[in-house]
Amino acid sequence: MDIRIIKTPSPGTLDIIKHRMGTSTNKELRGIDAVGLLQGKMIEMICAADIAEKTADVTVSDLRGNCPNNMIMVGIFGDTSSVESAIQEIKQTMREGTDS
Amino acid sequence: MDIRIIKTPSPGTLDIIKHRMGTSTNKELRGIDAVGLLQGKMIEMICAADIAEKTADVTVSDLRGNCPNNMIMVGIFGDTSSVESAIQEIKQTMREGTDS
Amino acid sequence: MDIRIIKTPSPGTLDIIKHRMGTSTNKELRGIDAVGLLQGKMIEMICAADIAEKTADVTVSDLRGNCPNNMIMVGIFGDTSSVESAIQEIKQTMREGTDS
Amino acid sequence: MDIRIIKTPSPGTLDIIKHRMGTSTNKELRGIDAVGLLQGKMIEMICAADIAEKTADVTVSDLRGNCPNNMIMVGIFGDTSSVESAIQEIKQTMREGTDS
Amino acid sequence: MDIRIIKTPSPGTLDIIKHRMGTSTNKELRGIDAVGLLQGKMIEMICAADIAEKTADVTVSDLRGNCPNNMIMVGIFGDTSSVESAIQEIKQTMREGTDS
Amino acid sequence: MDIRIIKTPSPGTLDIIKHRMGTSTNKELRGIDAVGLLQGKMIEMICAADIAEKTADVTVSDLRGNCPNNMIMVGIFGDTSSVESAIQEIKQTMREGTDS
Repeated sequence: MDIRIIKTPSPGTLDIIKHRMGTSTNKELRGIDAVGLLQGKMIEMICAADIAEKTADVTVSDLRGNCPNNMIMVGIFGDTSSVESAIQEIKQTMREGTDS
Repeated sequence: MDIRIIKTPSPGTLDIIKHRMGTSTNKELRGIDAVGLLQGKMIEMICAADIAEKTADVTVSDLRGNCPNNMIMVGIFGDTSSVESAIQEIKQTMREGTDS
Repeated sequence: MDIRIIKTPSPGTLDIIKHRMGTSTNKELRGIDAVGLLQGKMIEMICAADIAEKTADVTVSDLRGNCPNNMIMVGIFGDTSSVESAIQEIKQTMREGTDS
Repeated sequence: MDIRIIKTPSPGTLDIIKHRMGTSTNKELRGIDAVGLLQGKMIEMICAADIAEKTADVTVSDLRGNCPNNMIMVGIFGDTSSVESAIQEIKQTMREGTDS
Repeated sequence: MDIRIIKTPSPGTLDIIKHRMGTSTNKELRGIDAVGLLQGKMIEMICAADIAEKTADVTVSDLRGNCPNNMIMVGIFGDTSSVESAIQEIKQTMREGTDS
Repeated sequence: MDIRIIKTPSPGTLDIIKHRMGTSTNKELRGIDAVGLLQGKMIEMICAADIAEKTADVTVSDLRGNCPNNMIMVGIFGDTSSVESAIQEIKQTMREGTDS
């Protein structure tokens, strides 16, 4: 599982992320404080998304659009401290190997 | 075969799952008690789906949409005890290597 | 080559299979007695489909829809004894390495 | 490079092949005497298609539809002796490693 | 991570790049001085795009269209010195392993 | 990087190539003298396309359509001597590892 945090992402970076959120999305990303990116096995990323939303005031989204493979990426959107605490919880829960 | 159970999944998690169920679905996920996720070879996942529906009061769905690879993921939806008994039966049947 | 037989498949299992038969299909699966599933190299699966239809009273279908990879899955539909004899013939012909 | 010849292919087999020839095709496959199937690297398959059409009275087609990978399959259609001589020539030319 | 810079790209090269920027793009590439190309893991490419736009007067774009894999390519567009300084910063930041 | 040259390609071969140039193409291939085919990493293929067009009187095209992977194929179209000199230059430049 790869993890990155981008603070105050640039406009082109937000375009890339938005482009991969699928056409059905109506989430507004402009003005987002921070984005947490997680890449890994599909089944783990869905669990990670669930942990993130239950831990902090963040929203999550699948970053692929129409044609995913076995590996996917999940974006976690919110203010910097919320994104950081969500990712902290994911790291800890995943390391313990417990199901949420 | 990877197996996970998510209890009372968060809204964003349900969105990710719903997004991957394909546009033709009209299954209602809100209010679902638990989701069992299985990831593995396509041929095994179809057998697992069949075992799940024959074992407990759950519904199953293919979680990929239009463009699957060799590996797919199946979601098993229902109340927690039904999902758990379905997954228990899948584990046991698959371990024995018997065809249903 | 992986082989499985599902007898009297459950409704959700038939939905998954039907979903992967492509939109152009008008084959009726409800009431099908058994489904044989074969997964392997595309070139072998096409030969297996040909053997199946020449051996027993079954119909065959490609289980992928629009976006196949190198590996595909073929479904063989019919009554249980027909599906079993079709698969028996595939196993034997493939083992001998003869082209039909 | 995998090679197979199917003589007088069954209806379901022709459906699978036709389904993978893409929607833009208007080639008529019913009544075809034999089908040669080649699976390999895309660049080699295009060269093989060229050799086939220059060697014998056959037509060639790409068997994938919209979403190919690095590996593709080519179908060679014609009467049995034409398909066999086309495949014979492909085997020989490819073994010599010469470009047509 | 693979990196290349193309100065004053030819018309056919721009067509290939434009074709992979997706249909929703309205960025104008004709007259572009230089293109930086980066290929790597999706999560790193999004971070690299962010670094590029924060470092120099360039625009970034995801070069895949509808159907990405785990590996993607990002294009960085601008005058030659801007593209070069953006790529220089990406190399340095990525080597340090710091999140932007 | 795989390289092939096909001289006076057959009709079915041109159909396969045209089918993979995407629907947006309006390039006319009939009457083309020779086709150079290159298969390799996407980032290298884009550089190769650029070298080809800057070296000789050829046109280049991406041979995949909508759904590319990490590996792509580029076609180089023109008279035989132009295609050969373009490919000669690509081989030499790529071997030196210089960016164009």
